[in-house]
Amino acid sequence: MSEVSIREVAPRDGLQNEEPIPTESKVRLIDALSETGVRRIEAVSFVHPKAIPQMADADEVWRQAHKNPEVRYSALIPNTRGAQRAIAAGFREIEVVVSASDTHNRRNLNRSTEESVDDIAALIPLVHDAGATLEVIVATSFGCPFEGDVDPDRVAGIVARVRADGADRIAFGDTTGMATPRRVRDLLSAVRPDLLHFHNTRGTGLANILTALDLGVTEFDASVGGIGGCPYAPGASGNVATEEVVHMLHDMGIDTGIDLDRLIETAEMAEKLLGRTLPSGVLRAGPRTRLV
Amino acid sequence: MSEVSIREVAPRDGLQNEEPIPTESKVRLIDALSETGVRRIEAVSFVHPKAIPQMADADEVWRQAHKNPEVRYSALIPNTRGAQRAIAAGFREIEVVVSASDTHNRRNLNRSTEESVDDIAALIPLVHDAGATLEVIVATSFGCPFEGDVDPDRVAGIVARVRADGADRIAFGDTTGMATPRRVRDLLSAVRPDLLHFHNTRGTGLANILTALDLGVTEFDASVGGIGGCPYAPGASGNVATEEVVHMLHDMGIDTGIDLDRLIETAEMAEKLLGRTLPSGVLRAGPRTRLV
Repeated sequence: MSEVSIREVAPRDGLQNEEPIPTESKVRLIDALSETGVRRIEAVSFVHPKAIPQMADADEVWRQAHKNPEVRYSALIPNTRGAQRAIAAGFREIEVVVSASDTHNRRNLNRSTEESVDDIAALIPLVHDAGATLEVIVATSFGCPFEGDVDPDRVAGIVARVRADGADRIAFGDTTGMATPRRVRDLLSAVRPDLLHFHNTRGTGLANILTALDLGVTEFDASVGGIGGCPYAPGASGNVATEEVVHMLHDMGIDTGIDLDRLIETAEMAEKLLGRTLPSGVLRAGPRTRLV
Repeated sequence: MSEVSIREVAPRDGLQNEEPIPTESKVRLIDALSETGVRRIEAVSFVHPKAIPQMADADEVWRQAHKNPEVRYSALIPNTRGAQRAIAAGFREIEVVVSASDTHNRRNLNRSTEESVDDIAALIPLVHDAGATLEVIVATSFGCPFEGDVDPDRVAGIVARVRADGADRIAFGDTTGMATPRRVRDLLSAVRPDLLHFHNTRGTGLANILTALDLGVTEFDASVGGIGGCPYAPGASGNVATEEVVHMLHDMGIDTGIDLDRLIETAEMAEKLLGRTLPSGVLRAGPRTRLV
């Protein structure tokens, strides 16, 4: 493997799990990331502002952001209304989430997994008619904090259904950091996604990516600085930090298109914008090639 | 692979890189670790108190510690005087460090790597005459913060020399967290150690262990709670956290003999003894099997 594609998710997934920051700061973060060489950015989500106040200004953030023609930008949406807003805003890559775990889906979306899959089926023609693509993110693919282990066959069943309904892409989300190298092997031997989204909640983030690389996966989400807060307690980390992923990949001779130094500068900027110490070793210590 | 042997290094390597804590706290830490099921503990080092004030009370710590007959305890020593103290204290597993990088060895030990290797040769008969074994820890094996990459052939040369001189065991130390999966493969294809000691400074700790497991290594150092401070800056982590290593291994069906719940309780205790938040995801979030 000589290339891996990183999707930078700090502006959406990351900021959605942090204290709200001003519109201007979000735009600065997207603009800085757009100049790192990363080729894909999850920019915003179009959700109800009461549900996710962090994304209440999504339209304004996106209007102000400098769009680098070299970068593909995507938006997350929860329903038809969100999809219409994303399309109207000009997005042509749209993501929607369904949880493999019924309990998690009900807590998150107030309906069963089956009902959400039906909703997605109804959404796909609308997205396609606008010339856009829909990625289905299967959350809790590696385990559910309420139900525990999730049967890989259940994930495979959801994937088969949404692919049959016309979904363009599939991602697996490690929503609360329950993935491990063993679980990555177990799930990927049952069903293959286009992209993997790991957290580093229990330290296995890069070990999971290494395992997935070994199984041929070449697309990963990551969040600059590890932005994305902690699902359980202060100090617990959320998303894998983009600079840690890129640092390991480049050392393996795998290209990402990303300028690691510029990415670390962006992580430093993000730390100031958020006003908190971010959980990224490469941000703290620099790359291994940085000598004393 | 069905079993891995963990050596718990928090009482020595960990505490040596933290603010000093009282003798009683050190004893409590060793005693608690001795009841987790871990089979090897690096307990103290016999160094000059001016060089390492954190270990000034090594004799007293060891005298007070409850020695579990199921546990093998080891001590680190820098020279003949240290070896004599360790042997007098009853240790039969002794460790000594030499840096693969000449610059690092001079900064650390005020002599060249070659001179240190000669010192070790002189030490071996003394250790063996006391019925003890000597492990040589080759520091900066995966890179030096002053010199950068370290040639695997240089590490191999040191190993060949000290093995010829009678060293019983070899460990490779990732002294400042420069190891990556690629560097682990590179070095281990040139020369094999008995044990690996990784840091998690740049997030690759568990990915490195996963790589080494794949290459057949079955012995690893780890530090409960990730105790061991930060070589560069606050927030940067040092040693891999034992509970993160054990959590990943047990999930893979690899036995360590350790009771993970008891280990996490010990990490919680250690956090109180040290009075700081320790960098361990499994300590924060619990194992993946802990449900909401």
